[in-house]
Amino acid sequence: MRLHDPDRRTFASDNYAGVLPEVLAALADANGGHQVSYGEDEYTGRLRDVIRTEFGARAEVFPVFNGTGANVTALTAMVPRWGAIIATGSAHIHTDEGGAPERVSGLKLLVVPAEQGKLTTAAAETEAWGWGNEHRPQPLALSITQSTELGTVYCPAEVQAIADFAHDRGMAVHMDGARLWNAAAALELPFSAFTTDVGVDVVSLGGTKNGLLGAEAIVVLDPARVDGLHFLRKLNMQLASKMRFASAQLLALFDDGLGLRTAAHANAMAARLRAGLEGVEGIAFSHATEANAVFAELDLDAADRVRERYRFYDWDRAANQVRWMCAFDTTEADVDDFVATVQAALAG
Amino acid sequence: MRLHDPDRRTFASDNYAGVLPEVLAALADANGGHQVSYGEDEYTGRLRDVIRTEFGARAEVFPVFNGTGANVTALTAMVPRWGAIIATGSAHIHTDEGGAPERVSGLKLLVVPAEQGKLTTAAAETEAWGWGNEHRPQPLALSITQSTELGTVYCPAEVQAIADFAHDRGMAVHMDGARLWNAAAALELPFSAFTTDVGVDVVSLGGTKNGLLGAEAIVVLDPARVDGLHFLRKLNMQLASKMRFASAQLLALFDDGLGLRTAAHANAMAARLRAGLEGVEGIAFSHATEANAVFAELDLDAADRVRERYRFYDWDRAANQVRWMCAFDTTEADVDDFVATVQAALAG
Amino acid sequence: MRLHDPDRRTFASDNYAGVLPEVLAALADANGGHQVSYGEDEYTGRLRDVIRTEFGARAEVFPVFNGTGANVTALTAMVPRWGAIIATGSAHIHTDEGGAPERVSGLKLLVVPAEQGKLTTAAAETEAWGWGNEHRPQPLALSITQSTELGTVYCPAEVQAIADFAHDRGMAVHMDGARLWNAAAALELPFSAFTTDVGVDVVSLGGTKNGLLGAEAIVVLDPARVDGLHFLRKLNMQLASKMRFASAQLLALFDDGLGLRTAAHANAMAARLRAGLEGVEGIAFSHATEANAVFAELDLDAADRVRERYRFYDWDRAANQVRWMCAFDTTEADVDDFVATVQAALAG
Amino acid sequence: MRLHDPDRRTFASDNYAGVLPEVLAALADANGGHQVSYGEDEYTGRLRDVIRTEFGARAEVFPVFNGTGANVTALTAMVPRWGAIIATGSAHIHTDEGGAPERVSGLKLLVVPAEQGKLTTAAAETEAWGWGNEHRPQPLALSITQSTELGTVYCPAEVQAIADFAHDRGMAVHMDGARLWNAAAALELPFSAFTTDVGVDVVSLGGTKNGLLGAEAIVVLDPARVDGLHFLRKLNMQLASKMRFASAQLLALFDDGLGLRTAAHANAMAARLRAGLEGVEGIAFSHATEANAVFAELDLDAADRVRERYRFYDWDRAANQVRWMCAFDTTEADVDDFVATVQAALAG
Repeated sequence: MRLHDPDRRTFASDNYAGVLPEVLAALADANGGHQVSYGEDEYTGRLRDVIRTEFGARAEVFPVFNGTGANVTALTAMVPRWGAIIATGSAHIHTDEGGAPERVSGLKLLVVPAEQGKLTTAAAETEAWGWGNEHRPQPLALSITQSTELGTVYCPAEVQAIADFAHDRGMAVHMDGARLWNAAAALELPFSAFTTDVGVDVVSLGGTKNGLLGAEAIVVLDPARVDGLHFLRKLNMQLASKMRFASAQLLALFDDGLGLRTAAHANAMAARLRAGLEGVEGIAFSHATEANAVFAELDLDAADRVRERYRFYDWDRAANQVRWMCAFDTTEADVDDFVATVQAALAG
Repeated sequence: MRLHDPDRRTFASDNYAGVLPEVLAALADANGGHQVSYGEDEYTGRLRDVIRTEFGARAEVFPVFNGTGANVTALTAMVPRWGAIIATGSAHIHTDEGGAPERVSGLKLLVVPAEQGKLTTAAAETEAWGWGNEHRPQPLALSITQSTELGTVYCPAEVQAIADFAHDRGMAVHMDGARLWNAAAALELPFSAFTTDVGVDVVSLGGTKNGLLGAEAIVVLDPARVDGLHFLRKLNMQLASKMRFASAQLLALFDDGLGLRTAAHANAMAARLRAGLEGVEGIAFSHATEANAVFAELDLDAADRVRERYRFYDWDRAANQVRWMCAFDTTEADVDDFVATVQAALAG
Repeated sequence: MRLHDPDRRTFASDNYAGVLPEVLAALADANGGHQVSYGEDEYTGRLRDVIRTEFGARAEVFPVFNGTGANVTALTAMVPRWGAIIATGSAHIHTDEGGAPERVSGLKLLVVPAEQGKLTTAAAETEAWGWGNEHRPQPLALSITQSTELGTVYCPAEVQAIADFAHDRGMAVHMDGARLWNAAAALELPFSAFTTDVGVDVVSLGGTKNGLLGAEAIVVLDPARVDGLHFLRKLNMQLASKMRFASAQLLALFDDGLGLRTAAHANAMAARLRAGLEGVEGIAFSHATEANAVFAELDLDAADRVRERYRFYDWDRAANQVRWMCAFDTTEADVDDFVATVQAALAG
Repeated sequence: MRLHDPDRRTFASDNYAGVLPEVLAALADANGGHQVSYGEDEYTGRLRDVIRTEFGARAEVFPVFNGTGANVTALTAMVPRWGAIIATGSAHIHTDEGGAPERVSGLKLLVVPAEQGKLTTAAAETEAWGWGNEHRPQPLALSITQSTELGTVYCPAEVQAIADFAHDRGMAVHMDGARLWNAAAALELPFSAFTTDVGVDVVSLGGTKNGLLGAEAIVVLDPARVDGLHFLRKLNMQLASKMRFASAQLLALFDDGLGLRTAAHANAMAARLRAGLEGVEGIAFSHATEANAVFAELDLDAADRVRERYRFYDWDRAANQVRWMCAFDTTEADVDDFVATVQAALAG
């Protein structure tokens, strides 16, 4: 039963895209017969091996349903009931999770300003104090997003600086990797080079935004930094019964470089989009375009004219700022037509 | 990449089974192009229509990831922060959700004994009191499971009696329908006949245990009995980004009677299993076998001998009680071999 | 400004009574000048010393506002987010705290039947299982009440048996001591003899029901069994700014045996009440009267006639059961008049 | 038993001060005999009448233990589970409650910058958006503090502007009045003039910082803006059993203008302190001194020399900023000696 037009694409979100054909094939392969539920299946076992190859021998993986589930469950396992988490004002956990960290786990976020979406140690320092004082929420973890919500990418040295800052103060480091594949593709580095090797303790590894049907994973890089994840995943309602299918999806991305290729493609489409409009009168770009998102500032009437043809989101309407996202299935033709549409709209 | 034997089946759980081929086909149909994320897609729209046909014109549907998510989110929307929920001691929300109702939403469960897994008004009455007294958790909802965790099925009159009891006291009625399809198949009645029409307010509609990859839904039958579900689903980390695929799975079960057929088959296999062993010396049956579960009491050594060939779970080892589950893919040959295996084990 | 009749007493609750004159004097002594807030004052320091004398050299004390606060905060510090607590069906934490353990801290209670208000290891065993299984709330603590909600008292050997049972299974032991003074008076033993020395890990030490204005304390007997109490007391909104006055109240009870004398008096008044009615036709007693509560069964019309003169509470109206409480200020004359009133009511 | 020097005072906190003699007398008056517990006593009844006289005929009062309890419980009653609260970065609920709003009630705080400790509609507007979008925590209440944490006081027109802004957007208005008496004394206006009459919906009415032993109250000005406070006070462990004594304390402040006189005195002492140091070389003042707090910037070595004689707190050590608080019992001689001490310290 097909109810939609499979040829229509947008620049709204990588969540608007569907599923990679390789992923559908992997689901079919994992189907049939009985497999132990809740994670004792063959696919989850294999995923553990693959994750250890990619992230280091101590890594542990906990497949979950979605990014909010991954982030909240990871952070809950990283801090005690009195813990607070330092994050940027543009962090997804602060702006786009409906307050789930606070409501589900009672986590206090200590929010600091970010430039280009990145946390700096200088910004973190404004909230990293007061340990032992029971009146103050205890800052016991930092969370950064890679690639960031603003389409930028931390280089390994930037991550290392944050991790050193955190560890020196007894804080743990979480990386929201909803778009970790895009970061890896942008950096052209293995995952471990900008996570395990530079001090990240726990990663929320995305998959859905990179062509999965719906699967993410909490990847623990330093098991000493978490407690009770096994229980918390269930408590947080993130434990899939037929987990073989979540694991099979994630495995598909690691198979033969699929996930890196698709992420690199999405990144390239964003670069092409930006290149096509860079320097055009009436448009400015807010941040570096390092992954698959382009943030532009333009007249909102012009933006609305573009929207008649292509759906996308305002980011900050007060600042005339919009976000254009590319996905694994965005084509060069899509980009070129979009660029032409924007140019026409700007021309009035 | 296939890592398992697709011909091997068990009697452990309907969650051990895989995905119906029609469901994989539905996922492929729903794929391609861009669809608005988080529920504004065509498939979720169609699901709404189908649900209203099945459950009544006022029904609202909220796809979620899993049964615990459905139950906890539904109950949270049904009671204020000071609400408590009356349920049986065998209720999944009490025994198998890791305390999620309490931890995620602060819900107090008031647990009463159940015979054959069913809540009675007499049992409910022991906890249905104390409204207005702030020292007492306020009983504001009842939750029943259909089919029950013990493989029995409420007839419509039984549900009606409970719903009348609840509504007379200002309490709302939740039905955990993780195996609602099995109940519908057993009763040979439309869903509305044992839900909407007999006073159920909110249903957790299962799908995964009946051949989906992973999709359940909260179905609100009386919108006046819930508040904020839209927000709570997100807060409870149960909002799928690519919701079209969850909705497409659920739609597949409603398409051409698929879900009823598969549930009826699983029920029939359970009946066949029981019939094959009924009256055999050394085995007794704890409950009526009305859906797809058989609860048997037998010597545990014999049970362990059976387990060398077929995986299944002890239910209450102290009572020599085991549970045998049939799934959509259990075959007559599977059952017959299992029966023979049990008979041989009992014979020593 | 006096708005009430200071000569009128009831048999409703030890919370209906006021404040011991020695306690008002202690408040006046602690007044004047400035003392560091939140617990670094001289009175809280002294309380620590006194508690160590009474409960053992490792004991730590955390004054709080009320019994619910003490219980919930103590239990929260004793179990991780995935912990559950085994308690009796008559436990105050289950029946009379409005669901605070569940709502404030997400604690799951695993409730077992109790005879005479006491937890037994046989009852505990029905819920003490399933460790490591993430579907099952993890039983990691037991809570017992001393003296019990039904007016009985655990002897040290009974506590020891429960503590051994718990510790053997990795569970911690909490004692709700809202009426710990009454228990000590009944047992004629030092506190340590039925707490520290027999394996209790954390006590909620009552004061308010024994003549304080309002002060309780969490007393940690085994610091290895708790985590973060310092923070949790603040988080749970139980940290008094002018803590010197809470500590001064508690100190008054320990000064020159005051608290034991007043509790012994209340116990004696309950014994006198029971003795005065024992054997009278039309009345039966539900439990042993070992502390300051008498549970009686009598015709409810007769009870209501008594209530015209003396306020008290029904305990279980369906069972014709009422509760009569004595307090530090109950006099022999009060009891004798009450006995006569009951006898007259029973006589019709 | 007196363990401290009643003649020693500090400039650290109004919580370091003790109890007004009139309050101790009120406790003695309220003592004796039995009074119904949990709020059905004569004193709590009278308090209700007094509160209605002061705050308006619809006002309802809920005595609680402490300010954090008042704030968290009030805000919980004001917003549903998905509600967020806009507050300033200097708000006590954000900085000094250990994360209790988040942990106890899952409340998300949306924090905006404040000048002089005051929330402005311009600042509020940066977070007052996104209603209906489940990804965004829903801003459904504003919280302001009167007098502010920085010693300033909102005039009625400022409150009105905030309340209008909030109500126009469907948001409720909470006022943290831990030092409401100081604000009333500073404004020389009745409470209603800067609360009820200008749109405040719920007030946390302080008492402890103004000479009580320990009592605060939630005062509901618009009952339509709250739900379930009766239950939530118990759930949040803020329900005093012997409530007559909490109410008697609060009543004492309203009796014959006591609370206004003591607050006015504290304010006057702060003004005297500031006047004594205004213009002195080496010291600057960060905010207007409108209530009982003085914020000064001075060389930290000088500050530490002052601290050898008088205890007080750094506010922002990085900014050389300290806080000096005056209390009901601060004397002119205390202030004059303190001023002289500071001058001497600044002189080196």
